[in-house]
Amino acid sequence: MSQEKILHREQLSGVFAPLTTPFDARGNLLLEKLASNVERLNRSRLRGYLVLGTNGEFRSLSPHEQMKVLKTVIHTAAPQKVIMAGTGAESTPVSIELCQQAAEIGAHYGSLITPFFFAKKMSDRALIDHFVQVAERSPIPVLLYNNPGVTNITMSTTVIKEVSSHPKIVGMKDSSPGNLSAYILNAQPGFYLLAGSANFFFTGLLMGAIGGVLSLADVFPEPCCELYDLGVAGNLEEGRELQLQILKLNQMVSGKFGVAGVKAAMDFAGFYGGPPRAPLPSLTTEEKKKLREDLIASGFLKE
Amino acid sequence: MSQEKILHREQLSGVFAPLTTPFDARGNLLLEKLASNVERLNRSRLRGYLVLGTNGEFRSLSPHEQMKVLKTVIHTAAPQKVIMAGTGAESTPVSIELCQQAAEIGAHYGSLITPFFFAKKMSDRALIDHFVQVAERSPIPVLLYNNPGVTNITMSTTVIKEVSSHPKIVGMKDSSPGNLSAYILNAQPGFYLLAGSANFFFTGLLMGAIGGVLSLADVFPEPCCELYDLGVAGNLEEGRELQLQILKLNQMVSGKFGVAGVKAAMDFAGFYGGPPRAPLPSLTTEEKKKLREDLIASGFLKE
Amino acid sequence: MSQEKILHREQLSGVFAPLTTPFDARGNLLLEKLASNVERLNRSRLRGYLVLGTNGEFRSLSPHEQMKVLKTVIHTAAPQKVIMAGTGAESTPVSIELCQQAAEIGAHYGSLITPFFFAKKMSDRALIDHFVQVAERSPIPVLLYNNPGVTNITMSTTVIKEVSSHPKIVGMKDSSPGNLSAYILNAQPGFYLLAGSANFFFTGLLMGAIGGVLSLADVFPEPCCELYDLGVAGNLEEGRELQLQILKLNQMVSGKFGVAGVKAAMDFAGFYGGPPRAPLPSLTTEEKKKLREDLIASGFLKE
Amino acid sequence: MSQEKILHREQLSGVFAPLTTPFDARGNLLLEKLASNVERLNRSRLRGYLVLGTNGEFRSLSPHEQMKVLKTVIHTAAPQKVIMAGTGAESTPVSIELCQQAAEIGAHYGSLITPFFFAKKMSDRALIDHFVQVAERSPIPVLLYNNPGVTNITMSTTVIKEVSSHPKIVGMKDSSPGNLSAYILNAQPGFYLLAGSANFFFTGLLMGAIGGVLSLADVFPEPCCELYDLGVAGNLEEGRELQLQILKLNQMVSGKFGVAGVKAAMDFAGFYGGPPRAPLPSLTTEEKKKLREDLIASGFLKE
Repeated sequence: MSQEKILHREQLSGVFAPLTTPFDARGNLLLEKLASNVERLNRSRLRGYLVLGTNGEFRSLSPHEQMKVLKTVIHTAAPQKVIMAGTGAESTPVSIELCQQAAEIGAHYGSLITPFFFAKKMSDRALIDHFVQVAERSPIPVLLYNNPGVTNITMSTTVIKEVSSHPKIVGMKDSSPGNLSAYILNAQPGFYLLAGSANFFFTGLLMGAIGGVLSLADVFPEPCCELYDLGVAGNLEEGRELQLQILKLNQMVSGKFGVAGVKAAMDFAGFYGGPPRAPLPSLTTEEKKKLREDLIASGFLKE
Repeated sequence: MSQEKILHREQLSGVFAPLTTPFDARGNLLLEKLASNVERLNRSRLRGYLVLGTNGEFRSLSPHEQMKVLKTVIHTAAPQKVIMAGTGAESTPVSIELCQQAAEIGAHYGSLITPFFFAKKMSDRALIDHFVQVAERSPIPVLLYNNPGVTNITMSTTVIKEVSSHPKIVGMKDSSPGNLSAYILNAQPGFYLLAGSANFFFTGLLMGAIGGVLSLADVFPEPCCELYDLGVAGNLEEGRELQLQILKLNQMVSGKFGVAGVKAAMDFAGFYGGPPRAPLPSLTTEEKKKLREDLIASGFLKE
Repeated sequence: MSQEKILHREQLSGVFAPLTTPFDARGNLLLEKLASNVERLNRSRLRGYLVLGTNGEFRSLSPHEQMKVLKTVIHTAAPQKVIMAGTGAESTPVSIELCQQAAEIGAHYGSLITPFFFAKKMSDRALIDHFVQVAERSPIPVLLYNNPGVTNITMSTTVIKEVSSHPKIVGMKDSSPGNLSAYILNAQPGFYLLAGSANFFFTGLLMGAIGGVLSLADVFPEPCCELYDLGVAGNLEEGRELQLQILKLNQMVSGKFGVAGVKAAMDFAGFYGGPPRAPLPSLTTEEKKKLREDLIASGFLKE
Repeated sequence: MSQEKILHREQLSGVFAPLTTPFDARGNLLLEKLASNVERLNRSRLRGYLVLGTNGEFRSLSPHEQMKVLKTVIHTAAPQKVIMAGTGAESTPVSIELCQQAAEIGAHYGSLITPFFFAKKMSDRALIDHFVQVAERSPIPVLLYNNPGVTNITMSTTVIKEVSSHPKIVGMKDSSPGNLSAYILNAQPGFYLLAGSANFFFTGLLMGAIGGVLSLADVFPEPCCELYDLGVAGNLEEGRELQLQILKLNQMVSGKFGVAGVKAAMDFAGFYGGPPRAPLPSLTTEEKKKLREDLIASGFLKE
């Protein structure tokens, strides 16, 4: 394994928060709220941030706004925090362009969602060529992003087998249920897996993932870091216990409500969550009340 | 019904070609090829063009490229041709912005695909609010665009019932199989349905659609216009016969191969089709050969 | 075309009711209620009955019960009524057995749903072999039954092209949205298409279907027969009008509620509908009340 | 927890083989082959057998054949082996009938697949009522069976929360990807989870499952039992290693080919696999050759 790939291992080990993008009630971008969220997260043990991901509502932003968001995070993030930026577009040329812009602004990694507008045509060959071509022309290394819940594409192990030896393709964030072990099995050495959901973070670590990008870390970074520690230590008893609690927590926030739930919970926890951008609906007043009660009952949210 | 809505009926009656976007082998935009395609189509009986739709690979373009494509078409289109522009983005504010840009460039209608990145959260209420808010702030009237094959969202009749009386929401392009009659049934007077596929164009016209946006019209505009005439005339025998032929044709081009098939067939028919933009794959040499033979055998393509 | 296939055309032209199976509140079979439903339908202009179909909850019955249901219908049906029996099981041998039993009891046609327990493995080749082998060993001719809403399999045109020339495979009931014209296009002469839903019965007839199996005919046989007449006559204006009304009706009954809705509406219309067999839920009291009001408002149900 | 529930824990702890049903080339049942497979498996450390499950092609058998298969297994199984029988039908009454027959023949547990013919109507309430009513009238305790790959229904945690305290509903076999931890979290004490796939057996055990029903155990019972031991012992290093190997093995057999692959591999391993029943296709000669080579290369199959 190259010296570089070993360095990536160090950079990607730990918990990442997929930052949400703050809006006011009319959908205007609130960059200062974003900055204050990041400042607070800077004091946590998080390894870094994913900007412009699903929880960042990246496809709901104009390209101009996307760059403003990325700049804000990069200027605010503590120096030791690792920054991934969502740079996956629907075409190869536009993805390359986004990687170049993100690199220029200062992101450390690009994150490439599988193009999915023409999902039925995304053969293994098409995806492999896409990832390789973007990686070759990207100034920064890239991570793949597998999220069939959004894309209706489950990356095949054939794709992983083929692209995971590329020097610029250094890992994958996997948000799919039940495929992480298969990706680990088929990855070349030096290709790192990150769990894309708190639901299977602990077992993912036990099977060989080296970190996670967890929406729950936007709200409760510390318990996520504790679960990471237990996984790394192979502490089965406490790890199992905390994983089940975190699973419960994650289901009441993200599982049930998605981005809107994460934002509502952030508001309760002292961050700025705010509303998602239309047409993505906010929680109703009743839903918010119930969520708050449930979070307090869980013990993770202090009253 | 308002005077305006009657005018829309006239504007939307007939066949529209959803223009493809020409690229070279490296994915560079070829605007002069686009212009020459439009010039040739100007001489057909087509009612107009849809720019920046699914067949235009609009999500594979950067926003800057999208506007260049739209400008090119508007500057080249014959004066009597009606221009619809794909202006549907994943969020309400960005969709409004696109409608404003398209209006400024000179498009006559905006076409709003259902936002689908967060497909599972797109309730009737969310979609209704989105369409109404965009329409209210758009300088030009808008059409809805229902394409579950891409979006995994089938617009409900509740949405149609509620938005179809809005003065700025004037119709819908429906590419879903089997829902057109239900939309016709639930539309308020002055809301016009366009078939979004040649597969059901004739029966759609018989049931009350007033036109169609047919990818086959990119290749064979005249037979599409003939089918329209037969539908309007209620000529059952000839219409049934031509519909079945066109269905066969459409399945060998668009049904089997999507945008890449439309582009390949355009090349055979004397237009510039060229390759789709990566990662969307082109037809293989064998597939092209077979398609060409099938098109000649169908009688629609002259050798 | 053989003399026999011409005869089938005559036998299959018209409207068929897919009979429901009456149960009491505990799920016991009520054969005398079935008989009285059939007696009343005997006086209608229906061409015949489909026994043991989806609306007959055939998979909710034991094999012994299935045969009792079929016997009851055959003994009660008026002599000129044509009887189709659901004889499609998950394996070829069991389907053959069911065809043999149905033939012995006196059914005229077997109806073969695509096996779907192993849906992902049902290749064209597997389905073709299945249909041909069953047909060869069935004493009675068979119809294919395409219902992707239940089976998650959409029969391909390749299957139709290949099996539709078989002397014992005489047609297909198609309940899928939007495929009927493609099946008509690919069918060999003497293979007959029946619309499997009232939603597209009129346009189906215009495109070449010769009849329909319509759950709405369980409740309102006469309007279904009228729509058939208008389709056969090519009466566009009245046909379109009635089709839209019947679409509305069908959506409030079957579209919204499925078998349970058909049964509730039968109760209102003077038949015995009764509850579906558990675990398929009945309509709630509120749902029934609302449905009854809607049916009266539609004008089809007399108060 | 009751004394009985503690007993169930003991009975269900370990690896179960979901027995395949042997046929000859024409689809005839070969009960003596079934008996000889069982005799050989009797000498393994397997905890017991699941008869008439998905891998047993239970829906491809007539009810008469189903009972013959069950009798054969029960008469041949070693006394200490625990026998589960697939007794889940599409309706509550027929499921009860099957439980009663299975009990009479001597099965220890009934396994209830979620009814799925009317999948879209299977609300939590409908499923809860079904499971409870069957359990109440079944002479033997029952296990739930969650397999969305076949049924298109993912059992909700609400269902588990509600039925898992029932004295006769003692556990669940979960074949879905990624839900096992959530079921464990929501189960009442004394409700036991079994992994329904070798893909996640080890992590399932670490999270609290007490056993597994693994098609791979039909072919390679011993490695499955070893993985179980490693899971119970919490041996992370060796367990992870063996899990990855078994995942690879399972994907080349069951993942790629389903029941037909399991049967082909059984033939290689000295059992009688034979062909699946039509229309489920066998592997081609090339596929068999390749599978055999891959199995030998894996080290699990001895040449």
